[in-house]
Amino acid sequence: MSSQTNLPVDPARIADVIDGLARITEPGRPYTRRAFTALFPAGRTFLDEKFKAAGLETRVDAAGNLVARRPGRKPGLGTIMLGSHSDTVPDGGRYDGIAGVAVALEVARALADRGIELDHDLEVVDFLAEEVSIFGVSCIGSRGMAGVLPEDWLSRQSGGLTLEQGIRDVGGDPARIVAEARRDIAAFLELHIEQGPVLETERLDIGVVTAIAGITRIEIIVEGRADHAGTTPMGSRADALAAAVRLVSGIEALAKSLSAGPAHFTATVGEFSIEPNAANVVPSRARLLIDARAEERTAMDVFAASVERLAAEISRETGTNIAAPRRISDNMPTPGDPLVLDVLDAACDAAGASHRRMASGAGHDTAFMAKVTRAAMIFVPCLGGRSHAPKEFAEIDDIALGAAVLLNAVIQLDEKLQDVIQEGA
Amino acid sequence: MSSQTNLPVDPARIADVIDGLARITEPGRPYTRRAFTALFPAGRTFLDEKFKAAGLETRVDAAGNLVARRPGRKPGLGTIMLGSHSDTVPDGGRYDGIAGVAVALEVARALADRGIELDHDLEVVDFLAEEVSIFGVSCIGSRGMAGVLPEDWLSRQSGGLTLEQGIRDVGGDPARIVAEARRDIAAFLELHIEQGPVLETERLDIGVVTAIAGITRIEIIVEGRADHAGTTPMGSRADALAAAVRLVSGIEALAKSLSAGPAHFTATVGEFSIEPNAANVVPSRARLLIDARAEERTAMDVFAASVERLAAEISRETGTNIAAPRRISDNMPTPGDPLVLDVLDAACDAAGASHRRMASGAGHDTAFMAKVTRAAMIFVPCLGGRSHAPKEFAEIDDIALGAAVLLNAVIQLDEKLQDVIQEGA
Repeated sequence: MSSQTNLPVDPARIADVIDGLARITEPGRPYTRRAFTALFPAGRTFLDEKFKAAGLETRVDAAGNLVARRPGRKPGLGTIMLGSHSDTVPDGGRYDGIAGVAVALEVARALADRGIELDHDLEVVDFLAEEVSIFGVSCIGSRGMAGVLPEDWLSRQSGGLTLEQGIRDVGGDPARIVAEARRDIAAFLELHIEQGPVLETERLDIGVVTAIAGITRIEIIVEGRADHAGTTPMGSRADALAAAVRLVSGIEALAKSLSAGPAHFTATVGEFSIEPNAANVVPSRARLLIDARAEERTAMDVFAASVERLAAEISRETGTNIAAPRRISDNMPTPGDPLVLDVLDAACDAAGASHRRMASGAGHDTAFMAKVTRAAMIFVPCLGGRSHAPKEFAEIDDIALGAAVLLNAVIQLDEKLQDVIQEGA
Repeated sequence: MSSQTNLPVDPARIADVIDGLARITEPGRPYTRRAFTALFPAGRTFLDEKFKAAGLETRVDAAGNLVARRPGRKPGLGTIMLGSHSDTVPDGGRYDGIAGVAVALEVARALADRGIELDHDLEVVDFLAEEVSIFGVSCIGSRGMAGVLPEDWLSRQSGGLTLEQGIRDVGGDPARIVAEARRDIAAFLELHIEQGPVLETERLDIGVVTAIAGITRIEIIVEGRADHAGTTPMGSRADALAAAVRLVSGIEALAKSLSAGPAHFTATVGEFSIEPNAANVVPSRARLLIDARAEERTAMDVFAASVERLAAEISRETGTNIAAPRRISDNMPTPGDPLVLDVLDAACDAAGASHRRMASGAGHDTAFMAKVTRAAMIFVPCLGGRSHAPKEFAEIDDIALGAAVLLNAVIQLDEKLQDVIQEGA
């Protein structure tokens, strides 16, 4: 990864925001600053002051997002928006989300430093609760901004608090979320740490994210028969675990085969349990939950059908009863906007950043912003692909290079988006 | 399974004991009569009355076993002992242990009915706490009678009670267990339901138990690496579950191969868990516990060595770290006494019972009695191999046929054991 001088952005200012937020963490538990907890507003206050100090007008929108605005020269042209999120998981890291917010602010400052005025309005956003929150759901702010926050989520409870009240507590106005859903955004860009090992392994500066993978969760229940482990001959058993391990092996083989092509595919059995889970009893039941992620929907369709065939085959061969695999949740992939992706490639070249196209296996606010505007994101490398842990780490120079790429992209988009509108007209 | 008339024993009397004990169960929870619980003494009182009504002298020995005695004609020749246990597991059955006690009493009654006096003393025993008790340990009475009850077990606690006090509460004298360890028993016989499907499947009346399998428990820990399930490519993972399922498959294949011969062998992965067990995280750790049971020690040695090689191989191939499998416990097989086994075969033939030799995969009091005397046991069929559950079932006619076999065996042993002593002299 390159270490450049003469960047049009200031790495020290980016580090200042990241370090400042890192200090706002639950005592003795780095780095924990979850949305809707007592500490979260302190992070928001810190950011609000930084935004204002950069000359931006700030507000909290109906969905509880902190939005900072730099007006453009041509009112009515729409907004170019940059941002990510400042909330963390419990025992999380310093960069996930936060790097994206810090870099968005740095782009606004770099524009001001150079006296560059944009035709579009520019907005920097800190989305509310991108991580799975205390209410068990994620991407609350970006869903709200896109007008797709399920209304029944507002009555979700956690420790006596409703999500509705939680949004109000950070300054939002839940009743107005749908009315204020944004339709004026011309483009949305997000920088994020990769949370995977690809850029580090390939020694590249930037990943231009072609798509955010669709996530499908599939539950499989294997019903066998509890028998005495000592007295039941090996050939007389219906061992739910013995059948379930064949499923896990088969799922892994399928995933490896589907991931051999250029498109991103993963499948993970992350939850696995057996009953009665007693040393001297043949397992009577096993449950497994597959988390499958595909850049291309066809791969997910192939996977789901193959898992279904596999389960039926193993059920037949082992004398266990395996019901048809059940899709617990099923989300489509979100492709990046082609125009924005081309701009990002060009911006990388202009900034002297080595880059490749790649999919995101993780979910991001960009997936919801893509419902209302041209959206895409870039990744910067992180150490060992680690995230959601205190040892999560990214080099400030890598992040700053990402900021330079975004700065270039914003300047290009400010022009190109007007051409597209004219072409379309 | 045969239904004979003209048996030298009375099926109705056996059923009366089994049914009477079945009525002594925790209210609304058939069939639960655990040792050291409030209900247990009621079962003991019921048995004590039945024993006395049959003309037997009863006492509770130092280890808390209920022992009923019918003196022989030649004092000093030693005791032929028959029995099993009356305690149940929680939500257990009506026959496990209980059938063995009922049949032992029936043998004494049948001898009396026919006016047969033995040279040996005959004792009928109800062992204390054969099942895993509230103190977490099993076979307390038979270990005590054999003088091998670990002394530190006496201070084990459960709900404010010590095992020491628990033994005292049923009339035992813990301080005298070691001193009163029996050395005068000439032979011990136990009838038990099979708790497996073999006799029922093969439509046989009696299993003559060649050995009680040794039980070895082996724990294996797989250490992988927690990674983001969406962003970590399939080829960059150290998935502890993916490695552990290969272990489970390999263990099953080994067990099937070792059980293909005539000697009993089973291996079961009964406990299996992963961490962090979260849908979107590649499993970082898996733990599995193997319960392996072998009639012949060489098979267990082969198994343990093969599992060790398998673990090393899978560790190498998957990039996970699998420590050497750890033996949590390791008990030798207990062979049945050859003379007693021959007598039991002959007794089956004399009673008109079809029979085969087979090992016991389950543990029994006989394993401890074998430390101090010639011991062996017989199995009678049970429905579907089920046990430790309310639906546990055995036909009274099958149990009665087992009683007739024991009666024949006792009469033969009363003579043969004297021949052996003379031969030995």
